[in-house]
Amino acid sequence: MSDELQKLRQHLAQIEDVHNAAQVLGWDQHTMMPRRGAEARSEALATLEWIGHDMFVSDQTGRLLEAAAASLNGTPEDSSDEARLVTVTQRRWEKARRVPSDLAAEIARASSVGQEAWAQARANSDFAAFVPYLKHNMELARRYVDCFDGYECAYDVLLDDYDPGMRTSKVAALFDQLKSELVPLVATLADRDVDDSLVHTEFQVDKQRRLVDDVVRRMGFNRDCWRLDDTVHPFATSFGSHDVRITTRWDEAFFPSALYGAMHECGHGLYEAGIADSLQRTPLGRAESLSLHESQSRLWENMVGRGRPFCGVLAPLVGEQLGRKVDPEALFKAVNRVQRSHVRVEADEVTYGLHIVLRFELEQELIDGRVAIEELPQAWNARMKEYLDLDVPDDALGVLQDVHWSAGLIGYFPTYSLGNLIAGQLWERIHADLPDIDQSVAGSDLAPLREWLREHIHRHGSKFSTSELMERTLGSDIVVAPFVSYLKQKLTGVYGVEL
Amino acid sequence: MSDELQKLRQHLAQIEDVHNAAQVLGWDQHTMMPRRGAEARSEALATLEWIGHDMFVSDQTGRLLEAAAASLNGTPEDSSDEARLVTVTQRRWEKARRVPSDLAAEIARASSVGQEAWAQARANSDFAAFVPYLKHNMELARRYVDCFDGYECAYDVLLDDYDPGMRTSKVAALFDQLKSELVPLVATLADRDVDDSLVHTEFQVDKQRRLVDDVVRRMGFNRDCWRLDDTVHPFATSFGSHDVRITTRWDEAFFPSALYGAMHECGHGLYEAGIADSLQRTPLGRAESLSLHESQSRLWENMVGRGRPFCGVLAPLVGEQLGRKVDPEALFKAVNRVQRSHVRVEADEVTYGLHIVLRFELEQELIDGRVAIEELPQAWNARMKEYLDLDVPDDALGVLQDVHWSAGLIGYFPTYSLGNLIAGQLWERIHADLPDIDQSVAGSDLAPLREWLREHIHRHGSKFSTSELMERTLGSDIVVAPFVSYLKQKLTGVYGVEL
Repeated sequence: MSDELQKLRQHLAQIEDVHNAAQVLGWDQHTMMPRRGAEARSEALATLEWIGHDMFVSDQTGRLLEAAAASLNGTPEDSSDEARLVTVTQRRWEKARRVPSDLAAEIARASSVGQEAWAQARANSDFAAFVPYLKHNMELARRYVDCFDGYECAYDVLLDDYDPGMRTSKVAALFDQLKSELVPLVATLADRDVDDSLVHTEFQVDKQRRLVDDVVRRMGFNRDCWRLDDTVHPFATSFGSHDVRITTRWDEAFFPSALYGAMHECGHGLYEAGIADSLQRTPLGRAESLSLHESQSRLWENMVGRGRPFCGVLAPLVGEQLGRKVDPEALFKAVNRVQRSHVRVEADEVTYGLHIVLRFELEQELIDGRVAIEELPQAWNARMKEYLDLDVPDDALGVLQDVHWSAGLIGYFPTYSLGNLIAGQLWERIHADLPDIDQSVAGSDLAPLREWLREHIHRHGSKFSTSELMERTLGSDIVVAPFVSYLKQKLTGVYGVEL
Repeated sequence: MSDELQKLRQHLAQIEDVHNAAQVLGWDQHTMMPRRGAEARSEALATLEWIGHDMFVSDQTGRLLEAAAASLNGTPEDSSDEARLVTVTQRRWEKARRVPSDLAAEIARASSVGQEAWAQARANSDFAAFVPYLKHNMELARRYVDCFDGYECAYDVLLDDYDPGMRTSKVAALFDQLKSELVPLVATLADRDVDDSLVHTEFQVDKQRRLVDDVVRRMGFNRDCWRLDDTVHPFATSFGSHDVRITTRWDEAFFPSALYGAMHECGHGLYEAGIADSLQRTPLGRAESLSLHESQSRLWENMVGRGRPFCGVLAPLVGEQLGRKVDPEALFKAVNRVQRSHVRVEADEVTYGLHIVLRFELEQELIDGRVAIEELPQAWNARMKEYLDLDVPDDALGVLQDVHWSAGLIGYFPTYSLGNLIAGQLWERIHADLPDIDQSVAGSDLAPLREWLREHIHRHGSKFSTSELMERTLGSDIVVAPFVSYLKQKLTGVYGVEL
């Protein structure tokens, strides 16, 4: 490695250390911190944020990048760690420098204030109280967009923060197709009866803990590198690939919440744990595309966890804790029931996509000014009627249900469904590459799957954008068909109807 | 507050935030972190250390200090927060700037390497294997001393890091007197029999947890601001006064380890929790004198926790968990037994001081070159014979027992015994100021004691040096007599002999 590259890496490593430290503080805040530690914690986090940002956007970073780039003899197609480090970091640096620190600070402040106002507004189902905060966040999002030029549409700029290089037009085309598949599927299935009493059994938390512990170990969790803790809103984080923290929450009356929540976060964790050692302490050592990230969590949660083969593994484990026999087929049906529901985070795999399409469409209309903020609840409710044939009883169960907009996270939602689509494609390819994978999973041997994902996805960290990695791994950009055909095949098994 | 002071405070607040973040990472490392997270953690900690140091020793800090000093109209005796902030910070800044960053980095590296070598050497009781590391640490300590001038003796410079302004000559005079009191006391008591079978009862960890939880709550622990977790080497830390973390360890065969360990750390925690809000996020918001800090932990652990009045509170609590009646008097005697023992951290209140005097004397001789490192075990063993009439069976139970020297912490040990002496003086004054204090404690009302300590010690943070605070609070510098008279009075009660 050239001297110039080493200097760049050393500088970026320290910035990553600051980022890592902030992640530790965030994890602690959501799992361990006593309530009254909040004030000092938000100050410490703001300072770390400021220091990390300051170190990154500095002229020094620019000089080191320039020198490192000059020391490389690669072509633009060079996919070595070194070449990608320079290219990806250069792109992030140029982007970060375009945002004045005043604006960045105002966005951070508005996010924090907005979340508090939202929590209050949601508790009272009082959208009007939330309007000024949402207006402010949208105004800031527009000012953020104005820092950039050369984009097709304003929403592209926002989307790029969560999935670098992704385009609104591409997402819109995918989601139109997805919607046209999902709406009739919901209409066909949602009124049919499935016996899901099994998942509404009373299930003691300490017994659920044993179940979850067992399941995540089978996935790849080990105590030398991982922790599993309790939290209110489950998340995964990591401080390097050897220190992965996942979280879940427990509901005695509905064990899938903890079980599938943990499998979901463990899927995220496996991604972080699988990033190559050579990328650690570099900006490439963190997965940057939330779509790819979500493809991993959803693949483990839904395709593995709710799949028929693994239900054969889960049923006796659930049965052991419940102290009675659990039929794998009954479990498979119970955890795959399709139901119209108001709340995204409680939605099944079919309706979930429609919750996302709705948000994606509304976000664009808000940013473009086609929908006024005051009219947002009506727009929301109309779409819920159109896509899910549901009347929304109040805004707490409607437009106020998610934290994202209050935190200024506009452009984040689409990555959830993009993740589903990608997972569908990966699932198809995995079955082609590993013809025995269903038998492996049914025999609780998850290593072949995990290793395939590590080899094709995880180890690359953020060396490649979503589309670049999809092209490298699958020879294709994101498409809808594999996910839909996966869904139809599974639901044919659940409902016994040809779809 | 002047503009200049506000700018200084803002700058120092960010440095404190970095320090706080490092404390969080350290706490996590010793309580939560998976084993293999160690490498990334040490890198993140080194970077935070470097950033914090760099921000502090900068010319910018110097300019802000100068401007703030000029904006104050106070006299040198001015004890306002503002005046002390400038004075104390100026002193620390000048000190920190004298140490070249190369040397500081080498000391940090040697500390980390030395601790690993020590752990290995101790496991094998192999002092020879540890010699090169100890030599290196001593050499670095001498180079550190050479960064300064105007000191009476080299050891003063080292001592100053753990108790700013403390002098070797003062400590030596105190310790000579202490030794002359303790040696005959040990000779009188150590061979007498006390029934301490009670503390060697089997006591399940979950029951000990309930006991400890109950006791620390009585002391002032509350879940809104505190946590208690498990660790290998107990410690206390805090991230601001509203987020205090204490730790303990559990021994099923010897419950005082967890109980008194937790009371000790809770005493440290109360100090941090009691520092005035006005000093938070300033360098004065952390207690700097380890002697004062130790006075708080020892006062709660020994004077309260092992005192006759509180044993009346503890006995029924212990009995409740053990499921049988526990006699307060028997408990009082069992937890105050005086015994010759090889290991400092297991020593009782009387012999403890001699373990410290021994280390203090050896440290000076090492720094001055009066004892060669190779001869250290002989020197150690000779003193153990002289002070405690004990033969040392091997170096693991002798010179290799403590981590401090391997970590380059030379000059740290005396603060443990200075803390005992200070606690003796505070205890005497508290009884004068609050004549009913023993009845309060016996009735489990610890609030008057805690509030007295907050008012006279805690709230000041590090506004004053040990001696300055002692003069303000007690009108006297550190003296030996109150501690010795406290010990004699208590042990007369335990042994039934006039001392």
